[in-house]
Amino acid sequence: MHRVIIPDIIEEHAVLTLKRTDSAFDAANMMKESNIAAVLVTDDDSKLEGIVTERDLTRRVVADGMDPKKTPLEDIMTADPAILDPTDSAGDALEIMRKRSFRHLPVSRDGKVLGMVSIRDLYAAVKADLEADIKETEAFVFGDRYSA
Amino acid sequence: MHRVIIPDIIEEHAVLTLKRTDSAFDAANMMKESNIAAVLVTDDDSKLEGIVTERDLTRRVVADGMDPKKTPLEDIMTADPAILDPTDSAGDALEIMRKRSFRHLPVSRDGKVLGMVSIRDLYAAVKADLEADIKETEAFVFGDRYSA
Repeated sequence: MHRVIIPDIIEEHAVLTLKRTDSAFDAANMMKESNIAAVLVTDDDSKLEGIVTERDLTRRVVADGMDPKKTPLEDIMTADPAILDPTDSAGDALEIMRKRSFRHLPVSRDGKVLGMVSIRDLYAAVKADLEADIKETEAFVFGDRYSA
Repeated sequence: MHRVIIPDIIEEHAVLTLKRTDSAFDAANMMKESNIAAVLVTDDDSKLEGIVTERDLTRRVVADGMDPKKTPLEDIMTADPAILDPTDSAGDALEIMRKRSFRHLPVSRDGKVLGMVSIRDLYAAVKADLEADIKETEAFVFGDRYSA
Protein backbone atom coordinates (compact mmCIF):
# COMPACT_ATOMS: atom_id res chain seq x y z
CA MET A 1 0.00 0.00 0.00
CA HIS A 2 2.92 2.36 0.52
CA ARG A 3 3.95 3.13 -3.02
CA VAL A 4 7.04 5.24 -3.56
CA ILE A 5 7.41 7.53 -6.53
CA ILE A 6 10.29 5.63 -8.12
CA PRO A 7 9.87 2.83 -9.14
CA ASP A 8 6.22 2.22 -8.10
CA ILE A 9 4.60 5.19 -9.82
CA ILE A 10 7.08 5.98 -12.57
CA GLU A 11 10.41 4.60 -13.68
CA GLU A 12 13.48 6.75 -13.76
CA HIS A 13 13.57 8.19 -17.26
CA ALA A 14 15.26 10.78 -19.37
CA VAL A 15 13.40 14.06 -18.92
CA LEU A 16 13.16 16.64 -21.66
CA THR A 17 14.63 19.92 -20.51
CA LEU A 18 15.21 23.41 -21.85
CA LYS A 19 17.26 26.38 -20.67
CA ARG A 20 15.81 29.54 -19.10
CA THR A 21 16.81 31.52 -22.20
CA ASP A 22 14.93 29.18 -24.56
CA SER A 23 11.60 30.57 -25.74
CA ALA A 24 7.93 29.80 -25.12
CA PHE A 25 7.85 28.82 -28.80
CA ASP A 26 10.60 26.21 -28.15
CA ALA A 27 8.67 24.83 -25.17
CA ALA A 28 5.40 24.54 -27.13
CA ASN A 29 7.21 22.68 -29.89
CA MET A 30 8.86 20.27 -27.47
CA MET A 31 5.45 19.58 -25.88
CA LYS A 32 3.83 19.03 -29.26
CA GLU A 33 6.57 16.77 -30.63
CA SER A 34 6.90 14.69 -27.48
CA ASN A 35 3.21 14.65 -26.56
CA ILE A 36 3.81 16.03 -23.07
CA ALA A 37 2.13 18.76 -21.03
CA ALA A 38 5.10 20.20 -19.15
CA VAL A 39 8.84 20.73 -19.66
CA LEU A 40 11.55 21.32 -17.08
CA VAL A 41 14.01 24.19 -17.13
CA THR A 42 17.57 23.38 -16.00
CA ASP A 43 20.83 25.28 -15.75
CA ASP A 44 24.13 24.34 -17.42
CA ASP A 45 24.85 21.87 -14.62
CA SER A 46 21.49 20.18 -15.24
CA LYS A 47 20.16 21.54 -11.97
CA LEU A 48 16.44 22.11 -11.90
CA GLU A 49 15.42 25.76 -12.14
CA GLY A 50 11.76 25.70 -13.09
CA ILE A 51 8.81 24.09 -14.83
CA VAL A 52 6.66 25.31 -17.73
CA THR A 53 3.24 23.81 -18.51
CA GLU A 54 0.53 24.17 -21.16
CA ARG A 55 -1.28 26.30 -18.60
CA ASP A 56 1.65 28.72 -18.37
CA LEU A 57 1.74 29.04 -22.17
CA THR A 58 -2.02 29.68 -22.20
CA ARG A 59 -2.15 32.20 -19.37
CA ARG A 60 1.26 33.87 -19.37
CA VAL A 61 1.90 33.98 -23.11
CA VAL A 62 -1.29 33.77 -25.21
CA ALA A 63 -3.65 35.51 -22.77
CA ASP A 64 -1.10 38.22 -22.02
CA GLY A 65 -0.43 38.92 -25.69
CA MET A 66 3.28 38.02 -25.50
CA ASP A 67 5.23 36.97 -28.59
CA PRO A 68 6.14 33.29 -27.97
CA LYS A 69 9.38 33.53 -29.93
CA LYS A 70 10.52 36.55 -27.90
CA THR A 71 9.39 35.27 -24.50
CA PRO A 72 12.15 33.41 -22.61
CA LEU A 73 11.09 30.62 -20.29
CA GLU A 74 12.49 32.48 -17.28
CA ASP A 75 9.63 34.98 -17.76
CA ILE A 76 6.85 32.38 -17.60
CA MET A 77 8.20 29.39 -15.68
CA THR A 78 7.32 28.50 -12.13
CA ALA A 79 10.76 28.92 -10.55
CA ASP A 80 12.05 26.60 -7.83
CA PRO A 81 9.05 24.29 -8.18
CA ALA A 82 8.01 21.83 -5.50
CA ILE A 83 9.92 18.60 -6.08
CA LEU A 84 9.51 15.01 -5.04
CA ASP A 85 12.17 12.71 -3.72
CA PRO A 86 12.08 9.28 -5.42
CA THR A 87 11.25 7.72 -2.03
CA ASP A 88 8.25 9.99 -1.35
CA SER A 89 4.91 8.19 -1.31
CA ALA A 90 2.13 8.51 -3.85
CA GLY A 91 -0.01 9.95 -1.07
CA ASP A 92 2.56 12.67 -0.27
CA ALA A 93 2.67 13.62 -3.94
CA LEU A 94 -1.12 13.82 -4.30
CA GLU A 95 -1.27 15.97 -1.18
CA ILE A 96 1.23 18.47 -2.60
CA MET A 97 -0.60 18.57 -5.92
CA ARG A 98 -3.96 19.12 -4.26
CA LYS A 99 -2.77 21.82 -1.89
CA ARG A 100 -0.83 23.77 -4.48
CA SER A 101 -2.96 23.01 -7.57
CA PHE A 102 -0.09 21.44 -9.49
CA ARG A 103 -0.67 18.70 -12.04
CA HIS A 104 3.00 17.86 -12.55
CA LEU A 105 5.88 17.46 -10.11
CA PRO A 106 9.55 16.89 -10.97
CA VAL A 107 11.31 14.06 -9.17
CA SER A 108 14.82 14.99 -8.16
CA ARG A 109 17.67 13.79 -5.93
CA ASP A 110 20.88 15.68 -5.19
CA GLY A 111 19.83 18.27 -7.74
CA LYS A 112 19.64 15.68 -10.53
CA VAL A 113 16.27 15.40 -12.28
CA LEU A 114 15.09 11.79 -12.35
CA GLY A 115 11.65 12.11 -13.87
CA MET A 116 8.31 13.82 -13.73
CA VAL A 117 5.05 12.64 -12.16
CA SER A 118 1.62 13.74 -13.37
CA ILE A 119 -1.57 13.74 -11.35
CA ARG A 120 -2.85 11.14 -13.80
CA ASP A 121 0.00 8.75 -12.89
CA LEU A 122 -0.95 9.16 -9.26
CA TYR A 123 -4.70 8.74 -9.67
CA ALA A 124 -4.03 5.51 -11.53
CA ALA A 125 -1.89 4.26 -8.65
CA VAL A 126 -4.41 5.31 -5.98
CA LYS A 127 -7.15 3.53 -7.91
CA ALA A 128 -5.01 0.39 -8.18
CA ASP A 129 -4.29 0.54 -4.43
CA LEU A 130 -7.96 0.84 -3.57
CA GLU A 131 -8.84 -2.04 -5.89
CA ALA A 132 -6.16 -4.15 -4.24
CA ASP A 133 -7.71 -3.23 -0.87
CA ILE A 134 -11.09 -4.47 -2.02
CA LYS A 135 -9.65 -7.73 -3.36
CA GLU A 136 -7.78 -8.31 -0.11
CA THR A 137 -10.85 -7.66 2.01
CA GLU A 138 -12.93 -9.93 -0.22
CA ALA A 139 -10.28 -12.62 -0.07
CA PHE A 140 -10.52 -12.41 3.71
CA VAL A 141 -14.32 -12.61 3.61
CA PHE A 142 -14.55 -15.43 1.15
CA GLY A 143 -11.49 -17.26 2.36
CA ASP A 144 -9.46 -17.34 -0.87
CA ARG A 145 -6.22 -17.25 1.05
CA TYR A 146 -6.98 -20.42 2.89
CA SER A 147 -8.01 -22.38 -0.18
CA ALA A 148 -11.48 -22.66 1.29
CA MET B 1 -22.14 2.46 -7.66
CA HIS B 2 -23.78 3.53 -10.91
CA ARG B 3 -23.13 7.25 -10.91
CA VAL B 4 -24.62 9.32 -13.70
CA ILE B 5 -22.92 12.42 -15.01
CA ILE B 6 -25.60 14.86 -13.82
CA PRO B 7 -26.11 15.21 -10.88
CA ASP B 8 -23.68 12.64 -9.40
CA ILE B 9 -20.44 13.86 -10.99
CA ILE B 10 -21.24 17.48 -11.74
CA GLU B 11 -24.23 19.73 -11.32
CA GLU B 12 -25.86 21.40 -14.28
CA HIS B 13 -24.14 24.75 -14.58
CA ALA B 14 -23.72 27.71 -16.86
CA VAL B 15 -20.89 26.92 -19.27
CA LEU B 16 -18.63 29.60 -20.68
CA THR B 17 -18.82 29.61 -24.46
CA LEU B 18 -17.34 31.50 -27.38
CA LYS B 19 -18.18 31.70 -31.09
CA ARG B 20 -16.12 30.07 -33.87
CA THR B 21 -15.06 33.52 -35.08
CA ASP B 22 -13.69 34.52 -31.65
CA SER B 23 -9.90 34.33 -31.39
CA ALA B 24 -7.39 32.09 -29.64
CA PHE B 25 -6.49 35.21 -27.65
CA ASP B 26 -10.12 35.50 -26.46
CA ALA B 27 -10.13 31.82 -25.44
CA ALA B 28 -6.86 32.12 -23.49
CA ASN B 29 -8.22 35.13 -21.63
CA MET B 30 -11.48 33.38 -20.75
CA MET B 31 -9.47 30.40 -19.44
CA LYS B 32 -7.21 32.65 -17.39
CA GLU B 33 -10.00 34.77 -15.91
CA SER B 34 -12.25 31.83 -15.10
CA ASN B 35 -9.50 29.41 -14.08
CA ILE B 36 -10.61 26.74 -16.53
CA ALA B 37 -8.70 24.55 -18.99
CA ALA B 38 -11.22 24.32 -21.84
CA VAL B 39 -13.92 26.45 -23.45
CA LEU B 40 -16.82 25.38 -25.65
CA VAL B 41 -17.61 26.87 -29.03
CA THR B 42 -21.32 27.27 -29.85
CA ASP B 43 -23.31 28.71 -32.76
CA ASP B 44 -25.91 31.50 -32.57
CA ASP B 45 -28.55 29.00 -31.41
CA SER B 46 -26.25 27.89 -28.56
CA LYS B 47 -25.67 24.56 -30.30
CA LEU B 48 -22.31 22.97 -29.54
CA GLU B 49 -19.81 23.21 -32.40
CA GLY B 50 -16.47 22.46 -30.80
CA ILE B 51 -14.10 22.56 -27.86
CA VAL B 52 -10.78 24.37 -27.37
CA THR B 53 -8.31 23.42 -24.62
CA GLU B 54 -4.99 24.65 -23.24
CA ARG B 55 -3.43 21.85 -25.26
CA ASP B 56 -4.91 23.22 -28.51
CA LEU B 57 -3.55 26.68 -27.70
CA THR B 58 -0.12 25.18 -26.99
CA ARG B 59 0.11 22.92 -30.01
CA ARG B 60 -2.02 24.61 -32.68
CA VAL B 61 -1.23 28.23 -31.89
CA VAL B 62 2.06 28.70 -30.01
CA ALA B 63 3.96 25.72 -31.47
CA ASP B 64 2.73 26.50 -34.99
CA GLY B 65 3.75 30.14 -34.76
CA MET B 66 0.18 31.46 -35.27
CA ASP B 67 -0.85 34.94 -34.10
CA PRO B 68 -3.40 34.30 -31.30
CA LYS B 69 -5.33 37.49 -32.07
CA LYS B 70 -5.68 36.55 -35.74
CA THR B 71 -6.45 32.87 -35.22
CA PRO B 72 -10.20 32.13 -35.05
CA LEU B 73 -11.31 29.24 -32.86
CA GLU B 74 -12.71 27.41 -35.90
CA ASP B 75 -9.08 26.90 -37.00
CA ILE B 76 -7.93 25.25 -33.78
CA MET B 77 -11.00 23.73 -32.13
CA THR B 78 -11.87 20.06 -32.07
CA ALA B 79 -15.10 20.20 -34.08
CA ASP B 80 -18.11 18.02 -33.25
CA PRO B 81 -16.48 16.73 -30.06
CA ALA B 82 -17.60 13.58 -28.30
CA ILE B 83 -20.40 14.50 -25.90
CA LEU B 84 -21.95 12.94 -22.85
CA ASP B 85 -25.63 12.62 -22.09
CA PRO B 86 -26.44 13.64 -18.49
CA THR B 87 -27.58 10.07 -17.81
CA ASP B 88 -24.33 8.46 -19.01
CA SER B 89 -22.33 6.77 -16.27
CA ALA B 90 -18.99 7.89 -14.85
CA GLY B 91 -17.54 4.66 -16.24
CA ASP B 92 -18.79 5.41 -19.76
CA ALA B 93 -17.22 8.85 -19.59
CA LEU B 94 -13.85 7.56 -18.38
CA GLU B 95 -13.86 4.98 -21.14
CA ILE B 96 -14.39 7.64 -23.82
CA MET B 97 -11.67 9.84 -22.32
CA ARG B 98 -9.19 6.97 -22.13
CA LYS B 99 -9.85 5.69 -25.67
CA ARG B 100 -9.73 9.10 -27.30
CA SER B 101 -7.23 10.83 -25.00
CA PHE B 102 -9.63 13.61 -24.02
CA ARG B 103 -9.46 15.30 -20.62
CA HIS B 104 -12.72 17.21 -20.97
CA LEU B 105 -16.14 16.22 -22.32
CA PRO B 106 -19.14 18.50 -22.81
CA VAL B 107 -22.45 17.28 -21.40
CA SER B 108 -25.32 18.02 -23.74
CA ARG B 109 -28.98 17.10 -24.26
CA ASP B 110 -31.11 18.05 -27.27
CA GLY B 111 -28.25 20.21 -28.49
CA LYS B 112 -28.24 22.28 -25.29
CA VAL B 113 -24.95 22.38 -23.38
CA LEU B 114 -25.50 21.48 -19.73
CA GLY B 115 -21.96 21.39 -18.41
CA MET B 116 -18.47 20.04 -18.84
CA VAL B 117 -16.80 17.09 -17.12
CA SER B 118 -13.06 16.83 -16.59
CA ILE B 119 -11.09 13.65 -16.09
CA ARG B 120 -10.30 14.96 -12.61
CA ASP B 121 -14.02 15.08 -11.71
CA LEU B 122 -14.30 11.46 -12.82
CA TYR B 123 -11.22 10.15 -11.04
CA ALA B 124 -12.53 11.73 -7.84
CA ALA B 125 -15.84 9.91 -8.30
CA VAL B 126 -14.20 6.58 -9.12
CA LYS B 127 -12.03 6.90 -6.03
CA ALA B 128 -15.07 7.71 -3.88
CA ASP B 129 -16.90 4.67 -5.33
CA LEU B 130 -14.01 2.36 -4.56
CA GLU B 131 -13.73 3.72 -1.03
CA ALA B 132 -17.45 3.18 -0.54
CA ASP B 133 -16.93 -0.41 -1.76
CA ILE B 134 -14.26 -0.97 0.84
CA LYS B 135 -16.41 0.47 3.63
CA GLU B 136 -19.35 -1.70 2.59
CA THR B 137 -17.25 -4.86 2.48
CA GLU B 138 -15.71 -4.02 5.85
CA ALA B 139 -19.16 -3.31 7.29
CA PHE B 140 -20.17 -6.79 6.13
CA VAL B 141 -17.06 -8.37 7.64
CA PHE B 142 -17.24 -6.60 10.95
CA GLY B 143 -21.00 -6.59 11.19
CA ASP B 144 -21.63 -2.83 11.48
CA ARG B 145 -24.94 -3.17 9.73
CA TYR B 146 -26.32 -5.51 12.33
CA SER B 147 -25.24 -3.44 15.31
CA ALA B 148 -22.99 -6.29 16.32
